[in-house]
Amino acid sequence: MTPTGLESLIEALRCLPGIGPKSAQRMAYHLMQRDRKGAKRLGEAVLHALDAVKHCLRCNTFSETEICERCASPKRDQSVLCVVETPVDMNMMEQTLAYQGLYYVLMGRISPLDGVGPRELGLEQLMARVMDGLVQEVILATNYTNEGEATAHYITAMLKPKGIGVTRIARGVPVGGELEYVDSGTLAQALRERKACAA
Amino acid sequence: MTPTGLESLIEALRCLPGIGPKSAQRMAYHLMQRDRKGAKRLGEAVLHALDAVKHCLRCNTFSETEICERCASPKRDQSVLCVVETPVDMNMMEQTLAYQGLYYVLMGRISPLDGVGPRELGLEQLMARVMDGLVQEVILATNYTNEGEATAHYITAMLKPKGIGVTRIARGVPVGGELEYVDSGTLAQALRERKACAA
Repeated sequence: MTPTGLESLIEALRCLPGIGPKSAQRMAYHLMQRDRKGAKRLGEAVLHALDAVKHCLRCNTFSETEICERCASPKRDQSVLCVVETPVDMNMMEQTLAYQGLYYVLMGRISPLDGVGPRELGLEQLMARVMDGLVQEVILATNYTNEGEATAHYITAMLKPKGIGVTRIARGVPVGGELEYVDSGTLAQALRERKACAA
Repeated sequence: MTPTGLESLIEALRCLPGIGPKSAQRMAYHLMQRDRKGAKRLGEAVLHALDAVKHCLRCNTFSETEICERCASPKRDQSVLCVVETPVDMNMMEQTLAYQGLYYVLMGRISPLDGVGPRELGLEQLMARVMDGLVQEVILATNYTNEGEATAHYITAMLKPKGIGVTRIARGVPVGGELEYVDSGTLAQALRERKACAA
């Protein structure tokens, strides 16, 4: 006997990642009972975002303009392109303040189990972006997960024959990390990729 | 450099209970990237519910009509009124199939820490409902938490002088429960409230 409008709201909330029927019900009740103002803002924000938010034609991240601010900035180094999986990863890279080049956001990763292959990921668009004549190095900053690694391998195989320099962010012991708490795979890799110490 | 529409959506999603900045961001990206149809449905459902969902004038639960279906039903026993904290609790009671009376939904509980006293809870409305001349027994089915107990005590003190029968749902070992796994407070209470066995 839940009113149909409430029923539809509960159902609709389930499209959010990680939200099951119980949470959706709790959220719907909360919105209707405790936060109608927030609910109004939420409803309007979703519909507005759907209308306004598109993808940057150059880097594929979310943008409200055809070319996002970062891609349009004359201050960024046009010769380096950093490939990341998500906009969040791009933000993480930016927070390092150690990178001045441009980005390409895959908006996903190759993941055969989820039916995402090179085509679904739109790697042709990345290819076209890289071949603009300015890019000299592509830095692969996909995650060090199986899918991220597979994606990096695929992109490497795709770009190498075109004469583009392809690099991968380093893997190793985290800064501030103690060996005791680093997993053995990371440690083994850090050992294999050891570097000569400066004198 | 997150687009403003997306920023507003992330901010708006934070009004959902239990959703922090990271989850809100993940949800917003999910809606924009993977489920625009779901996002549209969500936005519309929220706005529609805001418009359509009100409170039943008699039992205070969510309803799209002035009087909800249950209160309007001639099949329900008008002489018993079960007081619960939330619509979910009402649904739980209904699922027992053991109750044929009507309900009153507090939409909360007395909780001084959250600034919810008898007035904020609208107990005058409950009082007015109980004094309709038909109700003979009020069953208090608020939770057996501190707040639920306080609420039950307050309502009892409020209704008793009016000559209304007030009862409280029983407390004890859950059906199917094993003593080994029941907390000692519950067990002590079950002992204190022991009943004579039928011959």
